[in-house]
Amino acid sequence: MKNRYKMTISYEGTAYAGWQIQPRHRTIQSELERVLKELVRSKVRIHGSGRTDRGVHARAQVAHFDLAAPLIAAKLLGGMNALLDADIRVMRLGRAPADFHARLSAVGKEYRYLIHNGPILPPFVRNVRTWVREDLDVEAMRKAARHLEGKKDFAAFSANPNREVEGTVRHLQNLTVRKRGSELCIVARGDGFLYKMVRSLAGFLLRVGRGDLSPGTARDILDSGTRTATVPTAPPQGLFLWKVYY
Amino acid sequence: MKNRYKMTISYEGTAYAGWQIQPRHRTIQSELERVLKELVRSKVRIHGSGRTDRGVHARAQVAHFDLAAPLIAAKLLGGMNALLDADIRVMRLGRAPADFHARLSAVGKEYRYLIHNGPILPPFVRNVRTWVREDLDVEAMRKAARHLEGKKDFAAFSANPNREVEGTVRHLQNLTVRKRGSELCIVARGDGFLYKMVRSLAGFLLRVGRGDLSPGTARDILDSGTRTATVPTAPPQGLFLWKVYY
Repeated sequence: MKNRYKMTISYEGTAYAGWQIQPRHRTIQSELERVLKELVRSKVRIHGSGRTDRGVHARAQVAHFDLAAPLIAAKLLGGMNALLDADIRVMRLGRAPADFHARLSAVGKEYRYLIHNGPILPPFVRNVRTWVREDLDVEAMRKAARHLEGKKDFAAFSANPNREVEGTVRHLQNLTVRKRGSELCIVARGDGFLYKMVRSLAGFLLRVGRGDLSPGTARDILDSGTRTATVPTAPPQGLFLWKVYY
Repeated sequence: MKNRYKMTISYEGTAYAGWQIQPRHRTIQSELERVLKELVRSKVRIHGSGRTDRGVHARAQVAHFDLAAPLIAAKLLGGMNALLDADIRVMRLGRAPADFHARLSAVGKEYRYLIHNGPILPPFVRNVRTWVREDLDVEAMRKAARHLEGKKDFAAFSANPNREVEGTVRHLQNLTVRKRGSELCIVARGDGFLYKMVRSLAGFLLRVGRGDLSPGTARDILDSGTRTATVPTAPPQGLFLWKVYY
C-alpha cells in the first residue's frame, strides 16, 4: 500500500523561478523536495496540480507525494515549515487515498489576477499586484469577460498550446471582474487552463479597460483560433493560483 | 516667505534601519533626502512627525521640508516615487503653511500593532505581522487594555524615557484589541507616545493574552513607575504608524 500524502501550499513567487524544478534555479518544487528529503532522509518526488510561472503566486496550490514508510502528518507539516523560507508555507498536510493525484484528480481551478488601479502603488502590496495607473473602464472589461465565459476554443488566449495532446477547448465557468476602491480582481474559474491562459485573458481585459479594444473583439479573437500580438500576456506578479477543485 | 511642503509617506520598514538618518545605515529619512536632493539639486532636510524604529512600518508617516524655490507638488511627488525603491512611497505631497511643523503641530497619533495568531504564518503577511502560535485570550487582553486607557504616567511602559524634557505622562485615548479570524489588531491612539511605548504595551498585552499575567497587573505596573522585565518589548514587524493627527 502506498503512503500517499496531500498538501496545500501557499507561496509568494517573487523570489522563485516558478513551480517546476529546473537545473540551476530556485523553484517552489525544488525547495519543497529539498526540505522533504532533509526530513525523511531520501529523495521524494512531489507532484503539483500544475505549474505556476516565474513570479506567480499561490494561495492554495495542491501537491501529492508518497513515502516509503508512513509519518505523522502534523510532524511533517511542522518540520517542512521549520526548514522552508517564510515565503513558502505548507498550510495543510494529510494522508490521501492511494489513487489521489494532484493533477489528474483535479476537476477545476480558480485563479485570481489582482490589479492596483491608481496613481501610486502602495508599498505593502508591491509584489502581489499588477499596477495600472490609467483609469480602467471596468464595465467594458465586464462586457468583454461575458463573451469569454463558456466552453470554447481558447487557442488564441494561450502561448504555445499543446494542441495534439489535450486540445484547446476549455470550459471557462466564470470570468468576473470585481472592483473595490483602487483594487481590481479578475476571477477565472474553469475545468482547466491552457499555458499562460489567465495572463492572456487578463492582458486582453486590460487592453479593453484602457479603451484600446472594444469588448466585442473577444468573439473575433476566439474565432480566429490564433494567438497574435492583439492579446498581450499580463505580468506575473498579479496572478494567484487561488484554489484547486477535486 | 518659506516654501514649506507637507508629505504623507507609506513604507514597509523591513529593509531599513528605522526612520532617522544614521551614518552607514539605510534609513527612510536618508532615502527621502537622497531622492529630494537629486530632484532639487541641493541638500534639503526632511522633518518627520517622529522616529520609527528599525523594522517598524508606516501607513501614513507625515513630514515637512522647505525649498529655496517653489516647485509643482505633483511633479515632486512623481519624481520622488520614480527614484525611491518600491517599499517607500510618497502618497500625498502639497504646500503647507509656513508655521506647519510635522512634529510640533501634531496633536495626536494612532499606531496599530498587527498579530497573526495561529499555527502557521501565511507567506503574504510574513513581514508585516508579529506571529503568535499559542491561542491568545483576547478578552483578558481587552480587560488589561481598559486599565491602561486615560491620562497616566507611562514611565513603566517606555524604554529610557526622557523624563526631564517632556515628562512621562501621556493621554492614551484609546487602547483596543480587535479580532477577525486569526488576525489581531491592537489600536493605540493618544496625544503622544514615549520611546517604545506601543511595543511595550503590546508586549505586556501579549503576556496577558498568553495567561502569564492577569489583566489587573496593568495598574500595579503603571503605579510602580519603573520599567522592569515584566514588560517585554514586542517585536517591530507588527507595528505600524497608522495616522498622525493635526
